[in-house]
Amino acid sequence: MTDRDAVPADAAALADRPLGPARTAELALHLEVASTPKPGNVDRERDHEDLRFAHFAAGAVGAGPGLAAAADPGVPLGDAFERAVAGMSRQGGGNTQFGALLLLCPLVRASVRGEPGAGTAAPESPGEDMIAAVVGDTTVDDAVAFYRAFEHVDVAVDDPPPGEADLDVRRGAAAESALRERGLTLGDVLARAADRDGVAAEWAAGFPRTREAATRIRDDDGPVTDRAARAFLALLGEAPDTFVATGHGDRVAESVRERAAALDAAGADRSAVSAFADTLVSRGVNPGTTADVVAGGCYLALRGGVDV
Amino acid sequence: MTDRDAVPADAAALADRPLGPARTAELALHLEVASTPKPGNVDRERDHEDLRFAHFAAGAVGAGPGLAAAADPGVPLGDAFERAVAGMSRQGGGNTQFGALLLLCPLVRASVRGEPGAGTAAPESPGEDMIAAVVGDTTVDDAVAFYRAFEHVDVAVDDPPPGEADLDVRRGAAAESALRERGLTLGDVLARAADRDGVAAEWAAGFPRTREAATRIRDDDGPVTDRAARAFLALLGEAPDTFVATGHGDRVAESVRERAAALDAAGADRSAVSAFADTLVSRGVNPGTTADVVAGGCYLALRGGVDV
Repeated sequence: MTDRDAVPADAAALADRPLGPARTAELALHLEVASTPKPGNVDRERDHEDLRFAHFAAGAVGAGPGLAAAADPGVPLGDAFERAVAGMSRQGGGNTQFGALLLLCPLVRASVRGEPGAGTAAPESPGEDMIAAVVGDTTVDDAVAFYRAFEHVDVAVDDPPPGEADLDVRRGAAAESALRERGLTLGDVLARAADRDGVAAEWAAGFPRTREAATRIRDDDGPVTDRAARAFLALLGEAPDTFVATGHGDRVAESVRERAAALDAAGADRSAVSAFADTLVSRGVNPGTTADVVAGGCYLALRGGVDV
Repeated sequence: MTDRDAVPADAAALADRPLGPARTAELALHLEVASTPKPGNVDRERDHEDLRFAHFAAGAVGAGPGLAAAADPGVPLGDAFERAVAGMSRQGGGNTQFGALLLLCPLVRASVRGEPGAGTAAPESPGEDMIAAVVGDTTVDDAVAFYRAFEHVDVAVDDPPPGEADLDVRRGAAAESALRERGLTLGDVLARAADRDGVAAEWAAGFPRTREAATRIRDDDGPVTDRAARAFLALLGEAPDTFVATGHGDRVAESVRERAAALDAAGADRSAVSAFADTLVSRGVNPGTTADVVAGGCYLALRGGVDV
């Protein structure tokens, strides 16, 4: 396996070398959950009742081997994603980072694409073209592996459109024949869900909001976790969170968006944002898709040179 | 390299398999810093001015490849430690987890000692005999690598005893000839520092406080980070923290111990402990050695079956 995160035998070389793509993705997961206040989400200051900070830490560490597989061009991307989800699921909180991993795996792959043996090169944030190429390269096998990933953890999703019950992701491996009959790649599967899932929408459109999050983090000042929290609020104000819409309906998702936009426009006073965060947590409203996008944004920002 | 944390090609197998020793050690570092309140330390609720939570997250992720080397019996333990420290140092906070890694590396090695190919076995907390055997197996080369590790990061240490200036760890690689002339192994080096450094004292005595921390975490109830915070307070009340003694003198270290013991005896009311934590942080008093021991305790507890 070509591991860009392999250990150089020379520790001095290691100290001078930036984190590889897989370890950077792992760090992005830790930074995302540490960033606060991120209204409605588990963050450094808030837990949900049965979903706590430590579950996210364990999810990120557990996802590590799968992320390393995503950094290996010899492993099919869908398999790498399934391994990341399987590893993430080895904690008691349930689904912590399914969506974040669905963004990070192709970003990690884009970072190593076309650069065999370039593990010692300076890191660079992969561009839109590279990301689109990774999406375009996905196969039906990748789609089958993506469906299998749903067998490792319960993921809240909408019902499929009428007439597509055979493609319900909750069928897991049982959907394989339906995928093969229709010849759907992973890119195809996610394009078909783009209207109802914010992570799928990123796949379908070249990761625009993920890249926007990275730009916001890069252009901001102060500790990276403060920057990520501000990027989260801005993104939450721009579009309704689809995870909130799935769990609580479109009206709640829109009202969360409006409140976030108002707070962001008012300059994001920290205590007001924290109060909003407490309110959403107490109502069990968790804008997880926006958090996923911010995790992806952290990855791109770190690869682009933002330091911790 | 025999990697107990290698990625199984079968994701279903991965989901059923516990974290390997190296990934468990990485998780222990994340759980230690997330545990709160841990008076005087960076924790989930507190930062020091230039040493923040995110630095610890980056330190833990960066240490990962070195911890993987510690899980490989083919890599000399000192080299694995140096790699872990070099990787840890790739963040802007300075020394985050030097002492914790000095405990975790031998614990990881003890977990894999004498069990070649046993990567799929149920994890088990290594016993005192196994740990002592790892210490006893260390070589002069390991001691030289340990000294080199000080070149990657500034570590606060006491002056060496009179007549041993040539063995000052701050000399780094320049101390190699002195180490070789005296034939000192890493175990020897740490035994000589046991009276003034709490991590070295663990090496010299079979890791008694680390094992006590693990027992406290195992026998407690509730989220693992709450258990670790309570174990921290108990241990802080039992012995003066040597990192505090190095930075602020023995009287301050003893007064911190007394206050911690009183709070622990009073049942560790969370708000009182938090107030003590705020006081210590505002005074820049950081009982880092006790935190290192708790990180090691988290590792042993996780290996022993405590779940996140």
